[in-house]
Amino acid sequence: MAFKTDIQIAREAKKKPIQEIGAKLGISSDDLLPYGHDKAKVSQSFINSVQDREDGKLILVTAINPTPAGEGKTTTTVGLGDGLNRIGKNAVVCIREASLGPNFGMKGGAAGGGYSQIVPMEEMNLHFTGDFHAITSAHNLLSAMIDNHIYWGNELDIDTRRVVWRRALDMNDRALRQITASLGGVSNGFPREAGFDITVASEVMAILCLAKDLDDLQERLGQMIVAYRRDRTPVFCRDIKADGAMTVLLKDAMQPNIVQTLENNPAFVHGGPFANIAHGCNSVIATTTALKLADYVVTEAGFGADLGAEKFLNIKCRKAGIAPSAVVLVATVRAMKMNGGVAKADLGREDVAAVNSGCANLGRHIENLKSFGVPVVVAINHFVTDTDAEVQAVKDYVATQGSEAVLSRHWELGSEGSADLATKVVDIIEKGEANFAPIYPDEMSLSDKINTIATKIYRADAAVMDNKILKQLADWEEQGYGNLPVCMAKTQYSFTTDPEMRGAPTGFTIPVREVRLSAGAGFVVAICGEIMTMPGLPRVPSAENIRLNADGDVEGLF
Amino acid sequence: MAFKTDIQIAREAKKKPIQEIGAKLGISSDDLLPYGHDKAKVSQSFINSVQDREDGKLILVTAINPTPAGEGKTTTTVGLGDGLNRIGKNAVVCIREASLGPNFGMKGGAAGGGYSQIVPMEEMNLHFTGDFHAITSAHNLLSAMIDNHIYWGNELDIDTRRVVWRRALDMNDRALRQITASLGGVSNGFPREAGFDITVASEVMAILCLAKDLDDLQERLGQMIVAYRRDRTPVFCRDIKADGAMTVLLKDAMQPNIVQTLENNPAFVHGGPFANIAHGCNSVIATTTALKLADYVVTEAGFGADLGAEKFLNIKCRKAGIAPSAVVLVATVRAMKMNGGVAKADLGREDVAAVNSGCANLGRHIENLKSFGVPVVVAINHFVTDTDAEVQAVKDYVATQGSEAVLSRHWELGSEGSADLATKVVDIIEKGEANFAPIYPDEMSLSDKINTIATKIYRADAAVMDNKILKQLADWEEQGYGNLPVCMAKTQYSFTTDPEMRGAPTGFTIPVREVRLSAGAGFVVAICGEIMTMPGLPRVPSAENIRLNADGDVEGLF
Repeated sequence: MAFKTDIQIAREAKKKPIQEIGAKLGISSDDLLPYGHDKAKVSQSFINSVQDREDGKLILVTAINPTPAGEGKTTTTVGLGDGLNRIGKNAVVCIREASLGPNFGMKGGAAGGGYSQIVPMEEMNLHFTGDFHAITSAHNLLSAMIDNHIYWGNELDIDTRRVVWRRALDMNDRALRQITASLGGVSNGFPREAGFDITVASEVMAILCLAKDLDDLQERLGQMIVAYRRDRTPVFCRDIKADGAMTVLLKDAMQPNIVQTLENNPAFVHGGPFANIAHGCNSVIATTTALKLADYVVTEAGFGADLGAEKFLNIKCRKAGIAPSAVVLVATVRAMKMNGGVAKADLGREDVAAVNSGCANLGRHIENLKSFGVPVVVAINHFVTDTDAEVQAVKDYVATQGSEAVLSRHWELGSEGSADLATKVVDIIEKGEANFAPIYPDEMSLSDKINTIATKIYRADAAVMDNKILKQLADWEEQGYGNLPVCMAKTQYSFTTDPEMRGAPTGFTIPVREVRLSAGAGFVVAICGEIMTMPGLPRVPSAENIRLNADGDVEGLF
Repeated sequence: MAFKTDIQIAREAKKKPIQEIGAKLGISSDDLLPYGHDKAKVSQSFINSVQDREDGKLILVTAINPTPAGEGKTTTTVGLGDGLNRIGKNAVVCIREASLGPNFGMKGGAAGGGYSQIVPMEEMNLHFTGDFHAITSAHNLLSAMIDNHIYWGNELDIDTRRVVWRRALDMNDRALRQITASLGGVSNGFPREAGFDITVASEVMAILCLAKDLDDLQERLGQMIVAYRRDRTPVFCRDIKADGAMTVLLKDAMQPNIVQTLENNPAFVHGGPFANIAHGCNSVIATTTALKLADYVVTEAGFGADLGAEKFLNIKCRKAGIAPSAVVLVATVRAMKMNGGVAKADLGREDVAAVNSGCANLGRHIENLKSFGVPVVVAINHFVTDTDAEVQAVKDYVATQGSEAVLSRHWELGSEGSADLATKVVDIIEKGEANFAPIYPDEMSLSDKINTIATKIYRADAAVMDNKILKQLADWEEQGYGNLPVCMAKTQYSFTTDPEMRGAPTGFTIPVREVRLSAGAGFVVAICGEIMTMPGLPRVPSAENIRLNADGDVEGLF
């Protein structure tokens, strides 16, 4: 049996005008700001007008630790959204936007896969509605204003060695990671070391995704620390007076984007912060708006549940005052086998024993998620080579963990394949068992918060922080940042800091190499491994093969 | 009498839905790609569908050398367009897009002024439809691919000291003018000198504005020279294999943007190349599309007629195969007085003698424009302090030059004030006197082309080029670039290279400091003075005062 590729399926999509999609959510044409015929932003005035409505139910889709076998978290998110609509529920999907730069290195990707996708695919991999460009502009305006301030006399007394605000581009460009700027003489300023991050790593991105509204956005932008003086006191964005103009640049970007699934159901695609040095979720404003418009909102978080769901629950839900009614944990038979020690090349062979042994990873995630007080449904994202015995092995294992696993065939069949999953999720939500709470209180010390995540979620013996790091955390507590949540930056492939350690390891520690303060976004980042904030291009970048064909279609991007 | 500001007038505009504006030109909703409710792009398929139609008449609006008094070239362009519509003609205006970066230094500007403006003003000063962001992305993709090529082994044998392709940002950031990139060790590449230009200075911008269609765009992008080898042979963009992906990034940006005047007449606002190192006109595709849709197309070119009109006629018209039926030369009484030696502070006083003496500048421009075989109408853009005697002095002078001057009060009255001008322009066009030809043939040597412009347009004794420059020009001729037109980069304030020399000076030479080859755009740039391709911010950048007010309106941008 030959399968169509994601792009083939996406191109065959019978898209409806975006006004029809908006109408499903009760958004009139006047309140939709169209970008072409298949994308739109929801107007701020409409968002304001629905604030008094009751919220729908929030469903988080997360996954086991990612493996090279692929889990299909976004595919399941989209499939579940379509499934809910199929069984007569009013549901909307909320996911992140894609970053432009990486598409020119490796191939760009679909939002979802198979018959569970969001379209238009090309646009979502290119400029989309310009949100990331707006973030890049706002970020670099601040950068330019900092150097301009220094150039004209440096009244704020910035230590030019301690400018922590870098520049940003949505491009994979390793040559810009570390530069010397302001060369060329007096009229170009004071030479200093500087560098660029990719736009998704910008604190502006994290803020856009956490801000409740434009006022909150400007407030948070103003709070960003951009540099330090010789006496180590911080210089803020508001001291540079850039927060107002940055907010103006971001006013359209703050409005959520609406597109559609292959089955013409509405989807919000908005924001895309890094899932390591930031929290890796779509925007708060998209999620909270969706909750006002639909009975069920299906969203996802970056990486596996140890990183993505933990940040979604401890950072996004805490800060936005939202709570999931259920969590769907995506697993695949293939990934279970890899967790059970099978090599990628051998995944096509039935191996129930390996499935059983790999399930330990799944089990730990179930336990972790339940510790937040939310019911968990496991979605087995079906792959054509899965055998019945393997699927049953996962189901049996999940039952021993006090949860239920549902086989879902949305990739192959769209909502027809995910209706069972949708039904199960609705059942669980209607039982009303959810009683969400973050796993640490605001008042806990920063180091204890880090330790709590390391021991309770990762199951490490401890987080290891040297005196310099502890001193830094204590300093921030003294400066009033002690109430912030922590944002862990760690490999997504393992509960440990070693990406090769699959399954459910024990007997390890989590060394914290560095801590950073994102004072505007509102979290302290604990870096536990190499974090690359500006990727490079591979030897043969995919850009070399990207072009328009004779029909005007984009080739080589997928 | 108190006048409203441009922004007050713009905010009171009764804008019509962009679909209604498109309908005036016969563009259906399906062929308009909306960006919000008041902006749209015209689809490529629609553009293709009208290629067999006859062209309307093209009118170029240009001006005397700019003075601090202001001439109102765009205001007159918009006013004339509205005036033509008022007298029953089907007319459309074509102007350039604004650059984002400079708005955060000095205040942003209206497109036009008073009651002759194009709206939406805020959007046009911010992200608009994202064209410039797309150009920035395409530009920087090529930059990243060049350094990536070097990083992975440099098969093309690029001399890293001779990479001529810089990076681009739409931001005034002097710190990026000259940098050392690829610092930080082996994984970041080979350190080398680099730098950023503002996006409007990118050759990609010039190409977008000269390309006939997407195929032509890709062809030209591929022809750009990005670096040289040790043996001085050029490395092209196509050698880096970036042209296809750049075209994909630019596919939407190539579609012209349609907005409206305050009087709800259609206006194309598309492209915005520098008027010094590039040709300074809106896009060819917007102009040629407009010519298929309207009986009269009113467009303008950057700076005064010596630079803007010369490039419009010798570069854009030549390359696009279009020809103006009439030229409107904008002058003001105040500017005549400044050319006649009056200081700015004294412009409010009647001074007919100064007007008379300043008219020499006007006269030379009339003569120059006629040398291209096009009839000239002088538009006196009325200012409230102008006296009847002063206006009459200009009219009398213009009559002695064999042309006619028409007083136009569009700034104050909109089309009611420009109907006379519109009527006069139509009269002249209907006489059919235009017989356009560029003032030098393709076959002329590059140095002779430079000399022709210097002597025939500027009235210099000669262009002065040293042996190094002459050798460079000869080399390019040998390489097959001899047929290209030249693009002069010179101060806009004078016929000479001295911005203080107003009026109609004689007895000077034009020293050419440097020549550059824009092989993709298709011209040789002759640089005759300081050219800044990355501006800086002033001591108190306007960004410090830009913010959203309580109504959500942008403050401080204007």
